[in-house]
Amino acid sequence: MDQPAVRYPEPGLADLLCLDDVEAAARRVLPAGIRDYVAGGSGAELTLRANRSAFDSVCLVPRILAGAGGCDLATRLLGTDLAMPVGVAPMAYQRLAHPDGELGLARAAREAGAVYVASMLSSYPIEEIAATGAAVWFQLYWLHDRRLVCDLLERAEEAGCRAIVLTVDVPRMGRRLRDMRSGFALPDGIVAANLPAAAGAAAGQRQARGSALMVHTRDAFDPALSWLEVDWLRRRTRLPLVLKGILHPDDAVRAVQLGVDAVVVSNHGGRQLDGAVSSVAALPAVRAAVGDRCELLLDSGVRGGLDVLRALALGASGVLLGRPAMWGLAAGGEDGARRVLDLLRTELEDAMTLAGCADVAAARWVRTVIPGEWGR
Amino acid sequence: MDQPAVRYPEPGLADLLCLDDVEAAARRVLPAGIRDYVAGGSGAELTLRANRSAFDSVCLVPRILAGAGGCDLATRLLGTDLAMPVGVAPMAYQRLAHPDGELGLARAAREAGAVYVASMLSSYPIEEIAATGAAVWFQLYWLHDRRLVCDLLERAEEAGCRAIVLTVDVPRMGRRLRDMRSGFALPDGIVAANLPAAAGAAAGQRQARGSALMVHTRDAFDPALSWLEVDWLRRRTRLPLVLKGILHPDDAVRAVQLGVDAVVVSNHGGRQLDGAVSSVAALPAVRAAVGDRCELLLDSGVRGGLDVLRALALGASGVLLGRPAMWGLAAGGEDGARRVLDLLRTELEDAMTLAGCADVAAARWVRTVIPGEWGR
Amino acid sequence: MDQPAVRYPEPGLADLLCLDDVEAAARRVLPAGIRDYVAGGSGAELTLRANRSAFDSVCLVPRILAGAGGCDLATRLLGTDLAMPVGVAPMAYQRLAHPDGELGLARAAREAGAVYVASMLSSYPIEEIAATGAAVWFQLYWLHDRRLVCDLLERAEEAGCRAIVLTVDVPRMGRRLRDMRSGFALPDGIVAANLPAAAGAAAGQRQARGSALMVHTRDAFDPALSWLEVDWLRRRTRLPLVLKGILHPDDAVRAVQLGVDAVVVSNHGGRQLDGAVSSVAALPAVRAAVGDRCELLLDSGVRGGLDVLRALALGASGVLLGRPAMWGLAAGGEDGARRVLDLLRTELEDAMTLAGCADVAAARWVRTVIPGEWGR
Amino acid sequence: MDQPAVRYPEPGLADLLCLDDVEAAARRVLPAGIRDYVAGGSGAELTLRANRSAFDSVCLVPRILAGAGGCDLATRLLGTDLAMPVGVAPMAYQRLAHPDGELGLARAAREAGAVYVASMLSSYPIEEIAATGAAVWFQLYWLHDRRLVCDLLERAEEAGCRAIVLTVDVPRMGRRLRDMRSGFALPDGIVAANLPAAAGAAAGQRQARGSALMVHTRDAFDPALSWLEVDWLRRRTRLPLVLKGILHPDDAVRAVQLGVDAVVVSNHGGRQLDGAVSSVAALPAVRAAVGDRCELLLDSGVRGGLDVLRALALGASGVLLGRPAMWGLAAGGEDGARRVLDLLRTELEDAMTLAGCADVAAARWVRTVIPGEWGR
Repeated sequence: MDQPAVRYPEPGLADLLCLDDVEAAARRVLPAGIRDYVAGGSGAELTLRANRSAFDSVCLVPRILAGAGGCDLATRLLGTDLAMPVGVAPMAYQRLAHPDGELGLARAAREAGAVYVASMLSSYPIEEIAATGAAVWFQLYWLHDRRLVCDLLERAEEAGCRAIVLTVDVPRMGRRLRDMRSGFALPDGIVAANLPAAAGAAAGQRQARGSALMVHTRDAFDPALSWLEVDWLRRRTRLPLVLKGILHPDDAVRAVQLGVDAVVVSNHGGRQLDGAVSSVAALPAVRAAVGDRCELLLDSGVRGGLDVLRALALGASGVLLGRPAMWGLAAGGEDGARRVLDLLRTELEDAMTLAGCADVAAARWVRTVIPGEWGR
Repeated sequence: MDQPAVRYPEPGLADLLCLDDVEAAARRVLPAGIRDYVAGGSGAELTLRANRSAFDSVCLVPRILAGAGGCDLATRLLGTDLAMPVGVAPMAYQRLAHPDGELGLARAAREAGAVYVASMLSSYPIEEIAATGAAVWFQLYWLHDRRLVCDLLERAEEAGCRAIVLTVDVPRMGRRLRDMRSGFALPDGIVAANLPAAAGAAAGQRQARGSALMVHTRDAFDPALSWLEVDWLRRRTRLPLVLKGILHPDDAVRAVQLGVDAVVVSNHGGRQLDGAVSSVAALPAVRAAVGDRCELLLDSGVRGGLDVLRALALGASGVLLGRPAMWGLAAGGEDGARRVLDLLRTELEDAMTLAGCADVAAARWVRTVIPGEWGR
Repeated sequence: MDQPAVRYPEPGLADLLCLDDVEAAARRVLPAGIRDYVAGGSGAELTLRANRSAFDSVCLVPRILAGAGGCDLATRLLGTDLAMPVGVAPMAYQRLAHPDGELGLARAAREAGAVYVASMLSSYPIEEIAATGAAVWFQLYWLHDRRLVCDLLERAEEAGCRAIVLTVDVPRMGRRLRDMRSGFALPDGIVAANLPAAAGAAAGQRQARGSALMVHTRDAFDPALSWLEVDWLRRRTRLPLVLKGILHPDDAVRAVQLGVDAVVVSNHGGRQLDGAVSSVAALPAVRAAVGDRCELLLDSGVRGGLDVLRALALGASGVLLGRPAMWGLAAGGEDGARRVLDLLRTELEDAMTLAGCADVAAARWVRTVIPGEWGR
Repeated sequence: MDQPAVRYPEPGLADLLCLDDVEAAARRVLPAGIRDYVAGGSGAELTLRANRSAFDSVCLVPRILAGAGGCDLATRLLGTDLAMPVGVAPMAYQRLAHPDGELGLARAAREAGAVYVASMLSSYPIEEIAATGAAVWFQLYWLHDRRLVCDLLERAEEAGCRAIVLTVDVPRMGRRLRDMRSGFALPDGIVAANLPAAAGAAAGQRQARGSALMVHTRDAFDPALSWLEVDWLRRRTRLPLVLKGILHPDDAVRAVQLGVDAVVVSNHGGRQLDGAVSSVAALPAVRAAVGDRCELLLDSGVRGGLDVLRALALGASGVLLGRPAMWGLAAGGEDGARRVLDLLRTELEDAMTLAGCADVAAARWVRTVIPGEWGR
């Protein structure tokens, strides 16, 4: 996959030198309610913070004199060739950040050679997203209305999506206090474009108190989702199947046994069970349990190329990038999203080169040192 | 036990979304001296803080696809069926927080299907508290005056209390510097309603210097309380017997050997031995020592439903909730107390559902990860 | 040893409820240079801070139902009966804090039933200090002038001192930047009262740059002090011999082999090797190495009765209290010193009672929990 | 090597009592861009900070009664006798800090009896630096232009340099955001004096965006440097060969196998791979792997004599001092540099004396205690 020369028409984007810069820029332009919706976690946001502190506690021991003169970021995930081991995480209603929404982010992913995981709750229909030409995976929440699930699955397959990502950590929505306090609801004009109007309407109906999205989730999602449905889904589609939101090694093993192709080690960016272990801390045990029997992606807390290398060194096959992609959209629409993925690629290339990794396979063998394993 | 539909007549209570919100609201309305009396710990308040930091260091590894579609919080403690594994901790003089006092809190506990542990030093008599219909346990300090102990025991039994809770960590009162600095004494009209006037009067007599409660404790409590008295008490009552204030596994084992039915792993909310280990950190070793030979409750530091789940995962049969219940009373009397227990139930249900626990028994098997056990 | 009823004629002292209160009061009255001289450590003051953080990381697991109804603080150190396992650490020039100086502090120690370790560099002569009737030990620095050492030793013995404490961690004075910046020198009228005028004069001679005490130490102290001199000293006096300033277990063992009676595990209050391990962290290994073959005292960082109990639980026979005694002197002369020792006794009695220790011997068996040994 | 009496003609230098004082003084006089260039690290500067926190977590257990009356700092590194186990790290363009530049710093090193490692990118030619009479080692980056490498090597040998230091951790320059933000470029008049004008010009050409030094590095350095070139270089020169920038034990072993004489355990002062392990934490495993088969120097984070002793205790043969030497130059030219090395010697002598080390060989056996090894 070729990477075209990058242009940043929007003045200022080129001055953003790391993903934190992009977040700062986005925060300046977004209304408070949307900013909080994107940034927030559940409960006291313990897990939200743990995701970062766990990453930052992982030190790498670089190798020198690799002699490669650079490194090759190309990889293959679920049979798709990618320019880097990165996907955009499924995030609902991306037009909240910018009118370019899902289309802008998918185009940026295509240019970057990254996967784009389309949220079931996208604000453009999956057909338009797939038409961008990106390598699109389709994310699914399990709805009460089984016919709607079947319908969405069919649409995703027909639109050319390359994998189905079933989110398994949302039997209900976590208590996101920021949204409850702001009374968050979708603004006019932003809807769940894949759903019939009635099925998505609740997300836009401002509540006397609390978050409209929570109400919608409670009404629409089936909390009783179980391994049976995974089994059903496994038989229902020939696309690769991914389970997103696993932290316990035994759950990953069971997923493998049911024929799941990849697992996303994730705590939903700290938005579901507050107090859950960071995905970074959970990853090594999950990899140890599944060995090479499936691909492992990690999300929750990735804020730069160094984090991608850390995740690879701890056993991930790749990562999904969430909030920073939304911040990029907010900061400059499609161009901002492109900037984010470009920075990530530059940083990852930099980190891998300086760590002595000639390619993604080598990154798996970088030695890590965690506090408490000092000097070993 | 049914949970009636909840109403919050007092405007504003519904806007309190977590127990910290309730504390903030209570602090705004309480006089400084009472606020400090409730909030404070002994000495440098090291243990007070350790109780929180120990909780927050406990990460959970959720399970997914449990398929239960929700969870059942019902449990049985000492033979009483409860709607959730929670009791209100014994706290003295609850009218300090609000005129509703013990009656309001007991009624809220009844509605919530939680235990209400009545303090010997309640500001309403035990008979009135029991008449609320709550599942009441009676807490006892060991007084110099043995006849008074016998009398209280008899009254508690006759009033229909379902267990006796002997506090064993107060041979003397800890040095609570906040109360000593404020010269804390009970305001006019608030008395130890279970005691003869003379036996409780000291608590209301403002000292030239220091805390009136300390003086009262020193005068009235028997510091020589020993295992002999426990043995005597065990034979004296047919009610289940609970010892509150154990941190050492050997003491828990000895309690079991004497026929004690439950132990409260507690450091008295950081109000007795400053420098004592947090009850959370002490719990696993206590559970390992007693196995299933007795029930274990935990108090000291519980500030939300997540903490309840953490305690269950570390071996508790249930928890007692202290200060937050007082803050609830202060913030809105009985309605405020109800709000606290309602939030706790909602949060616990939320955490259990997101952790994949279909019921309280399952919560015991949630895997925990503590710093230093990273990635395991 | 009886403890007389305590009076605090100076208004305000009774309002100081912990040793930190005393320090705050002292800081308000002392000139900046003296305040810094007392408070400061060497270098970046890493060890000064580590002494406190190590203490605060030690959690205790109290026992309950001891049934003693109080506790007995009496102990015996080096053959002297004491009301509590505490001594005042040797500190130079105590008149810097208050005109009562060593005499006030020694009288307070006598009343408290504590040891008073007189510094060789006292601002009153040893004979006057011993005449207070306190249990006095005499601390010795090794001077270039061996005759002066012999002379001091003889005077200490004749004055009735009960032990000789040789400081072994000052081959040179640590770089105390605060004193170097303030150009600290003894004010007029304060001298090393035990030394001939010439031998002590340098300490009062303000330098163009730097600390006069450092100059005096460099000129007067013999940096080549070795085990040979300890051996010589051991034979030279029939008094119990104490080495102060040991952190390494092997050094403690060697001291025992040479017939030393007690070792003070100490880093000189963080005033000598900055970067040295805290004395609290060093203590357990030292006790493990010497077993019961000698008494172990701990100093450096003791700031209250809880710390005394922690030290006992980690293997100390007793502690020496340094800076807080000076702060007490500064805050109220002899009365202030008395307040400090009174607070310490009250706090220790409180902590031991709440931890279930009937006496000092029992304190040795209190279980400790250190971070990293969580839940054990 | 004799240490002449030290004079500080520049008023004020003598008031700087530790290296942090020197840094503060330098920060007051340097322009922001240069200050940031010297102080900064790559990425989020995690490794920059880890270098310090790792040092500060190393506690020492001093020995007492060594009886030496002082200590001998003299050592021998790569066959050169030195007054202390210290070298000045290779740093580019030292005239950025002060017109005295490399000449001033080399003269200060000569007086201090320390090694001076001349950077290939020095702002005075290597011949003039060597003419100062210091013990000079020549540092080499591997350039695309192999003839230029040969030429530099020849010049270094002819100028009398005593060792060749090949930097192996710069296949590309780390992302130093401070320089990218400031658009850092060499000011007029400062050039890479060892290189032909064309080969160094890029470093002075202000970019529309980003750091000119990054551009220069990318253009001039060969990123494909490998063990083959080390082998070639080993055969090409009879001078001792040092590899600088190793953190992984296996790389150090391979270096030894190729005949390398010394390894510098370094993360380039936190300026290359952000997220790399601190050099302090990496050192013990490297020493364990190479045993005594080569000399080990440590750089990255040394900020005083205590750090030198810590490094020796953890297995280093000596240390290189980077930024503080630049701060010294900035604060007072050659005199400032002399002050830095003088402070370092004083502090090291102080620390070794107080730790009971009679000489550098003894320092290797000082026991260290790291958090997590508490009380052992």
